[in-house]
Amino acid sequence: MISEVRQKATLAQKAASTMNNLTTDQKNEALTRMADRLLAESEAIIAANGLDLQRGRDQGTSPSLLDRLALNEARVEAIAEGLRQIVSLPDPVGELLEQFDRPNGLRVEKRRVPLGVIGMIYEARPNVTVDATGLCLKTGNSVVLRGGSAAIESNRKIVEVLRGALTETAMPADAIQLIEDSDRASVNEMLKLNGLLDVVIPRGGASLIRNVVENATVPVIETGSGICHTFIDDSAIYQMAAEIVFNAKVQRPSVCNSMETLLVHEAFAERHLAQLAERFVEANVELRGCGRVAELLSGIHVKPATNEDFATEYNDYIMNVRIVANLDEALAHIRIFGTKHSECIVTENMEHAERFIQEVDAAAVYHNASTRFTDGFEFGFGAEIGISTQKLHARGPMGLPALTSTKYRIYGNGQIRG
Amino acid sequence: MISEVRQKATLAQKAASTMNNLTTDQKNEALTRMADRLLAESEAIIAANGLDLQRGRDQGTSPSLLDRLALNEARVEAIAEGLRQIVSLPDPVGELLEQFDRPNGLRVEKRRVPLGVIGMIYEARPNVTVDATGLCLKTGNSVVLRGGSAAIESNRKIVEVLRGALTETAMPADAIQLIEDSDRASVNEMLKLNGLLDVVIPRGGASLIRNVVENATVPVIETGSGICHTFIDDSAIYQMAAEIVFNAKVQRPSVCNSMETLLVHEAFAERHLAQLAERFVEANVELRGCGRVAELLSGIHVKPATNEDFATEYNDYIMNVRIVANLDEALAHIRIFGTKHSECIVTENMEHAERFIQEVDAAAVYHNASTRFTDGFEFGFGAEIGISTQKLHARGPMGLPALTSTKYRIYGNGQIRG
Repeated sequence: MISEVRQKATLAQKAASTMNNLTTDQKNEALTRMADRLLAESEAIIAANGLDLQRGRDQGTSPSLLDRLALNEARVEAIAEGLRQIVSLPDPVGELLEQFDRPNGLRVEKRRVPLGVIGMIYEARPNVTVDATGLCLKTGNSVVLRGGSAAIESNRKIVEVLRGALTETAMPADAIQLIEDSDRASVNEMLKLNGLLDVVIPRGGASLIRNVVENATVPVIETGSGICHTFIDDSAIYQMAAEIVFNAKVQRPSVCNSMETLLVHEAFAERHLAQLAERFVEANVELRGCGRVAELLSGIHVKPATNEDFATEYNDYIMNVRIVANLDEALAHIRIFGTKHSECIVTENMEHAERFIQEVDAAAVYHNASTRFTDGFEFGFGAEIGISTQKLHARGPMGLPALTSTKYRIYGNGQIRG
Repeated sequence: MISEVRQKATLAQKAASTMNNLTTDQKNEALTRMADRLLAESEAIIAANGLDLQRGRDQGTSPSLLDRLALNEARVEAIAEGLRQIVSLPDPVGELLEQFDRPNGLRVEKRRVPLGVIGMIYEARPNVTVDATGLCLKTGNSVVLRGGSAAIESNRKIVEVLRGALTETAMPADAIQLIEDSDRASVNEMLKLNGLLDVVIPRGGASLIRNVVENATVPVIETGSGICHTFIDDSAIYQMAAEIVFNAKVQRPSVCNSMETLLVHEAFAERHLAQLAERFVEANVELRGCGRVAELLSGIHVKPATNEDFATEYNDYIMNVRIVANLDEALAHIRIFGTKHSECIVTENMEHAERFIQEVDAAAVYHNASTRFTDGFEFGFGAEIGISTQKLHARGPMGLPALTSTKYRIYGNGQIRG
């Protein structure tokens, strides 16, 4: 018997041909109807979500996970509003990227086309179901959704509503597929579906992403993990440096672009580290530091930082601090422990700034600004599928163009190769 | 004990930091010296190649494989000339792809950067050793080469010469690494080297590529296989159609952009198929066809074509022929049997041409020209790493930019996120 995964991916692939031919207006109309229907069915969606929440509570799910799972009227409205924002974004499909004529008279165009069928593998956040669907459909793709089983009732209802919204539109309902099988095997089957899925995008925690990267034969866009550093150079202005690093650590520690390790030039540390550390301690940030940090911060509790600490993405109110002799030591530390996500130097020395930006190998490298800006909305893309931490295809915050491929269109009048 | 693969990949990664900082002139100087040294050491390279050839003959290797393996003075000269051509190409590294200012004053630049460390996995063609190295180094990458064991003596000597050429240049010799371990396990170890290799590119036959795609956890750029179709529409001009399909099939059948299946509109077939088939038969092309083809070509031997035939990349003097009722049937056939490489329509009906080009999902879609043009040199890129048959990162012929990633450089003056 054909599995649910294969069956639904096949339907998605069939729908992809139609998706490829839709105009921007047709896609926008479909997304607008989806937003309308979500609002109209808000009550039913919240009721389905209630079943997930009840099961979660029964199973002792943590309050923070329950909060991520929970829907209420305001959240459904925000989700629908997210779809309308996607409607307002320019459609990358069809964009002419290159055009050239060859001496033999061939005219070559390179244009953006949909990727085809996108597999989304994510955790128990029902907003991702709508968000990812909107982004995939706007770019003319079909989507096969595999959300966390903890949100299955919510996702089932949401997808029913979204598919239902398409009945009177030019967009085929089969462009949206939800895998309901909660067994981990259904994820692993998706990961091997070469020929049916064109790409798999994981969104979630480190173990989910690792499973996808390690087991997929379908091309993957890896997203997510970030051990981000800020290096405060000798010449940094104290007030600016303090604001930047405090923001990078504390404004939202749970996300990938927050800072895990603070590197401080020794001269700056002697002048300012005690004062700076005070501020983090007041915000209940646990400090882990090298021996020199502990010496300088004699009145503050500093745990010894191990190499394992420097290699950990805490996503929490914990910060490593290391004192370095100079820019070279900072660069060497980042080369070893960085995850190529977002890195920052705070300095008034432009030569150091340029060296840091040139030499650090990361998706986003900052001079005098918080690493928290690595984000599709903050970059002005109006949407974000995720933040790519690989170097192929897309790197850093991904907007709509990251969900497209390209096609060469070649116009001849009888050319043959000699 | 650390394996050869891990040890050499680690050296390559260390060298990548230096590679990232080289100027275009420094890279060009290094490549030029490599070309010079190849010529100077031509005799020693040919002698090493002789050992491979002797072993090949002893093992009963086929003449065509021996020919691919063989080096002589002219071939070494051509290989060196290939390096000089890479020198003459523009360097994509550093190119400014996007630039924008955010309302908060952040200035964002997106620039091309090297990928880092590229793993090349290929068969017994020593020219690929030089060619791939030249392309990787020009784009500021380190390269880890794993060629076929049948060419190991040639590759060892060539890499010794290439690395030796770098001693008086700014480019580190460790940017070039050759895996000498001929065990298949060394390939599979490379495929799992996440964190050391940034991408793996396979170049070779179907089974080599399949092994890479199925086992790699490192991101892969899939290259190679092509079941290419040409559809001759009702309105096609006979002479043009005949030239195009003959060229697509016969000019070089062994390559991925040659045609495997000819689709013919029934009206055109009734008028012209007998005459057209004659020409293929004269060129010793075996024909496999549907029942209607056999009827129309009563005087010619036509094997029945099975679905397996339609799904086979012959790379040989064999051609499937199928008669279709119209454009829709041709599109449906390509949707089922195409490998998304190169497809062509021959027609005078511009509406049909546009529909075909829009609807066919392939890297390169042609109107009135041979599919044999899908090639980096034919597209004017001046080089070719391969032809990508996946949709991520690069699709179709890959020039130098396909060997780069991007980096966001963000310049602030104290911005923090609210």
